Amino acid sequence: MEFLVSIQVRLPADLDPAERRDLLARELQRGLELRRDGTIRAIWRIPGALANVGVWEAEDATALHAALSSLPVFAYTEIGVTPLARHPIVEAEAGS
Amino acid sequence: MEFLVSIQVRLPADLDPAERRDLLARELQRGLELRRDGTIRAIWRIPGALANVGVWEAEDATALHAALSSLPVFAYTEIGVTPLARHPIVEAEAGS
Amino acid sequence: MEFLVSIQVRLPADLDPAERRDLLARELQRGLELRRDGTIRAIWRIPGALANVGVWEAEDATALHAALSSLPVFAYTEIGVTPLARHPIVEAEAGS
Amino acid sequence: MEFLVSIQVRLPADLDPAERRDLLARELQRGLELRRDGTIRAIWRIPGALANVGVWEAEDATALHAALSSLPVFAYTEIGVTPLARHPIVEAEAGS
Amino acid sequence: MEFLVSIQVRLPADLDPAERRDLLARELQRGLELRRDGTIRAIWRIPGALANVGVWEAEDATALHAALSSLPVFAYTEIGVTPLARHPIVEAEAGS
Amino acid sequence: MEFLVSIQVRLPADLDPAERRDLLARELQRGLELRRDGTIRAIWRIPGALANVGVWEAEDATALHAALSSLPVFAYTEIGVTPLARHPIVEAEAGS
Amino acid sequence: MEFLVSIQVRLPADLDPAERRDLLARELQRGLELRRDGTIRAIWRIPGALANVGVWEAEDATALHAALSSLPVFAYTEIGVTPLARHPIVEAEAGS
Amino acid sequence: MEFLVSIQVRLPADLDPAERRDLLARELQRGLELRRDGTIRAIWRIPGALANVGVWEAEDATALHAALSSLPVFAYTEIGVTPLARHPIVEAEAGS
Amino acid sequence: MEFLVSIQVRLPADLDPAERRDLLARELQRGLELRRDGTIRAIWRIPGALANVGVWEAEDATALHAALSSLPVFAYTEIGVTPLARHPIVEAEAGS
Amino acid sequence: MEFLVSIQVRLPADLDPAERRDLLARELQRGLELRRDGTIRAIWRIPGALANVGVWEAEDATALHAALSSLPVFAYTEIGVTPLARHPIVEAEAGS
Repeated sequence: MEFLVSIQVRLPADLDPAERRDLLARELQRGLELRRDGTIRAIWRIPGALANVGVWEAEDATALHAALSSLPVFAYTEIGVTPLARHPIVEAEAGS
Repeated sequence: MEFLVSIQVRLPADLDPAERRDLLARELQRGLELRRDGTIRAIWRIPGALANVGVWEAEDATALHAALSSLPVFAYTEIGVTPLARHPIVEAEAGS
Repeated sequence: MEFLVSIQVRLPADLDPAERRDLLARELQRGLELRRDGTIRAIWRIPGALANVGVWEAEDATALHAALSSLPVFAYTEIGVTPLARHPIVEAEAGS
Repeated sequence: MEFLVSIQVRLPADLDPAERRDLLARELQRGLELRRDGTIRAIWRIPGALANVGVWEAEDATALHAALSSLPVFAYTEIGVTPLARHPIVEAEAGS
Repeated sequence: MEFLVSIQVRLPADLDPAERRDLLARELQRGLELRRDGTIRAIWRIPGALANVGVWEAEDATALHAALSSLPVFAYTEIGVTPLARHPIVEAEAGS
Repeated sequence: MEFLVSIQVRLPADLDPAERRDLLARELQRGLELRRDGTIRAIWRIPGALANVGVWEAEDATALHAALSSLPVFAYTEIGVTPLARHPIVEAEAGS
Repeated sequence: MEFLVSIQVRLPADLDPAERRDLLARELQRGLELRRDGTIRAIWRIPGALANVGVWEAEDATALHAALSSLPVFAYTEIGVTPLARHPIVEAEAGS
Repeated sequence: MEFLVSIQVRLPADLDPAERRDLLARELQRGLELRRDGTIRAIWRIPGALANVGVWEAEDATALHAALSSLPVFAYTEIGVTPLARHPIVEAEAGS
Repeated sequence: MEFLVSIQVRLPADLDPAERRDLLARELQRGLELRRDGTIRAIWRIPGALANVGVWEAEDATALHAALSSLPVFAYTEIGVTPLARHPIVEAEAGS
Repeated sequence: MEFLVSIQVRLPADLDPAERRDLLARELQRGLELRRDGTIRAIWRIPGALANVGVWEAEDATALHAALSSLPVFAYTEIGVTPLARHPIVEAEAGS
C-alpha cells in the first residue's frame, strides 16, 4: 500500500556542527537504503525548508512506522501521513 | 518542473444527476489526456473524499494553471499547489 | 489494516423531511451491513453533532474508499482518515 | 463511559538516553496495567510519530484525568479527549 | 457528569420570519425545561452572536447527546463539548 | 460581570521538582483565596492537561487582569477570556 | 467598560439591490446613533472587506450584546469581541 | 505606500454564464485602468485558483479600500491586505 | 495613517528577575515617549496576558516598523498589524 | 519562473550580540548579491517583525531552494513559497 509522507525536520539550533553533519550523512545513507528496498518510491525536497514529501510503499501502517522511525533524524521530525487509494484515471488506464 | 497538486472537488448537492454523471465522465476523459501528454505524472485518490493528490509536470506556474483550469470540474475545486525541488537522495542516486 | 475514520454529516437544511428520513434509514441499513461484514469494527456517536468516529478494517485505502463511498450519505460528508499501526502495548501483550 | 483519547508525546531532545529508555519502559508498564484493569480498551500507534490514539473507559472525566496523569510521560504530553456516545448502529444491533 | 457545551446557532438567512420566531420560542421553552430538570446547570449568551456557552449535567455522553438533539434548533447548530473533571481547588474545599 | 476563563499551564520541563511542588502549592492557596472572595465562581479541570476552565466575576477587564496576574503560575500560562452576557433562559426565569 | 469589536458583514450574493441599499442605509443611521450615545467610541473600516473594527463602551457584556444585536445587518455578521483592560502606560499618564 | 494584496474570487456556481463572462470582462478592464494609473504595481495569478496576489500603491488604507471596492467582482472576493515597509536591502542599495 | 497593532510579549521563563524588571521599566518609558509624540494614539491591555492592542499613527509602514522595532521588548514580541481606513460613519459625521 | 517568498526569521533569544550583528551583516551582503544577480526581484519588510516578503526569480524549485538555503540565517527561518503564474491583466497588456 502507498502513503503520501511529508517530513519536516527541525534540528536544534545549538546542535554541534560535526554532529549535525554526521546526522545528515547517516540520514542520506538510510534514505538511499529505503530507496533501494522499494520503501521510498519517490521523494522531493520542499523548497525553503529542511522538509520533503514522498510516496512510501509499506505493507501496512505498522511497517510504515517501522521504516519512518528507522530514520536517524526521526527524533527531530514532524511527519504527516496520508493513505493513498487508486485513482479512477489509473483504473481506466489499467482496464484499457 | 514538477508540482504536488491536491484537488478537492465540491459538487453542489443540488446538481442534476445526469449533469453530474456527464461532468465526471468528461473529467475522467480530460484526466486521461493529461496523463497521456505527460502533465499528470502520478495521481491518487484520497480515501473518503472526492479528492486526489498528484504530481504534475509543467514548464512553469503559468502552464500549470492552464492545465488545471482546463479540468471540467475546475469551477468546483479547491486546489493546493506545492513546487517540488530535487531531493538529495535523488541527486546522490543520479551521481552514483 | 485498520483506519480511524471520523465522519461529519452535513445534510442540507432544505432537504425534504421524508427524503431525509429515508436517507438516514438507508444509512443505518448500510452501516449494519458494514458491521456484519467486519468493515466497521467499532463506531461511536460524537455528542452534539451528526457525526461519528469509528475503527474500520479494509485491505487497503482503495478498499476503504469503496466502503466509505458506498454510504448513502456520502455526498454530504466530510471524512477524516487516519491509518492505524500496532501499539507497543499490544505487541507486548501478544508476546507474553 | 468511553472516551477517545489521542496522546502526542514530545520528549525533550536533550533528554539523557538512559533516562529516556527508563521513562519509556515505565510508560509501557503503566500502559499494560491500564490495559489489564480495563481502562485502556483499545490503543493504536499513529504512524510517523511518538503518538497514539485509544479508547479509554472511566467512570467520569475526573477518573479519566487520574488515569491520564498517572502516565510516566504525562509531563511531556499533549492530550486530546473526546467523550463518546452510543451510535445508532450499536443500538440497532443491541435491540435485534 | 458535567460538560462544558458551546452552541453556535446559524439560522438560514432566508428562513421565514414567522417560522423563525416560532422556532426560537420553542427553543426557549425547551431550554427552560432542561433548566428545570437540572440538565442545564448554567448558561450564558456569547455577546455579538446567536451563541451560548453552558454547563450541562448528564449521566454520560449518550444522555448528553439525547438532550442536545432535543433542541428545536439542533439542525442549525455547531456544538462543542468538553468533558469536565473536578478541580483541585474544589477538592480542597470539599476536604476542609 | 462574569467571564469564562480558560487557563493552560505550561511548566518548563526542567523546573526543579521542589520549586514545582512549591509553585503548585502556592497556586492552590491563591486559587482558594480567589474562591473565597467570590472572584472564581466555578472552576473545572480539563481532563488530560494542566488546564482548567472557570467562571470568574470581576468589576471589569482591568480587575480581571489584576486577579489573573496574581496567580503564582501566571508567567507560565496561556489564558483565554470570553465576556459572558445574560442568556434569555435566565432572563425568562428571572421574569417568572 | 470598553470592548474591541470586529465585525465582518457577509450579505447574501442574491440580496435584492434595493433591499441591500436600504439595509446599508439603516445600518449607517443606527451606527450614527450608537456614536452619538457614546456606545461606539471609535470605528475604522478594514480595507478590502465589508468589515470594521471599533472600540465599544458598554456597562457589561449584556449591554454590549443588546447594542450589537440592534444593528440592522446583525443577522449577516460574524462578530469578535475582546474585553479591554487599562494599560500600564495609561495608568502611568493618569498618575503623573 | 505599498500594500501586498491577495484576492480570492468565489463566483456563485449558479451565476448565469453570460453574466459571468460580462463580469470577468469588466473586471479585466478595471484591472487595466488600475494598472495604467499606477495603483496596481504588479500582479500575478495564483495557479489553480481564481485568485491573484499583487503589489498595490495607494496614499493610505482609505484610498486602497476605494480602489479595491471599485472592482466589479468585489462582492465575491475575500481579500487579504499586508502593509509593506522598505527593506534594509533596498535601503542599502539606495544609499550606495 | 492609522494601524491597529496587537503585541504579544513572550519573555523567556529563565530571564533574570532584575533584567526583567529593568526591561519592563524601559518598555514603559519608551511607551510613554511614543504616546507623547503621538505615535500611540490609544492602547489597552488584553486581560490574562502580557499583551496589548493599540491604535498607532505613522506616516507609512516603514515609519511604523521603526517605531515598533524601537521597543525594548521587540526581540520577544509577536506583532500583528492591520492598516485602518476611514469608516463611512466617520465620513458621515465629518460631512454633517 | 517567479515565486512569492515570505521569510520569517526567528533568532534565538540567547544568541550572542556580536554573533547576531555579524549574522545580520552577512545576511544583508548575501541579500545584496541575490539582488544584483537578479534572483531577488523585489523585497519588502513586514512591519513589526524580522520578516520579509519578496518576489524571487529562479529556473525552478531546485534553483530556488539553492538560493534560499544560501542565506546565512537559513537555519533560523520559516519560509513560505508560492509559485506565480502570469495574470490575464499582464497578458492583455503584453498583447496590446
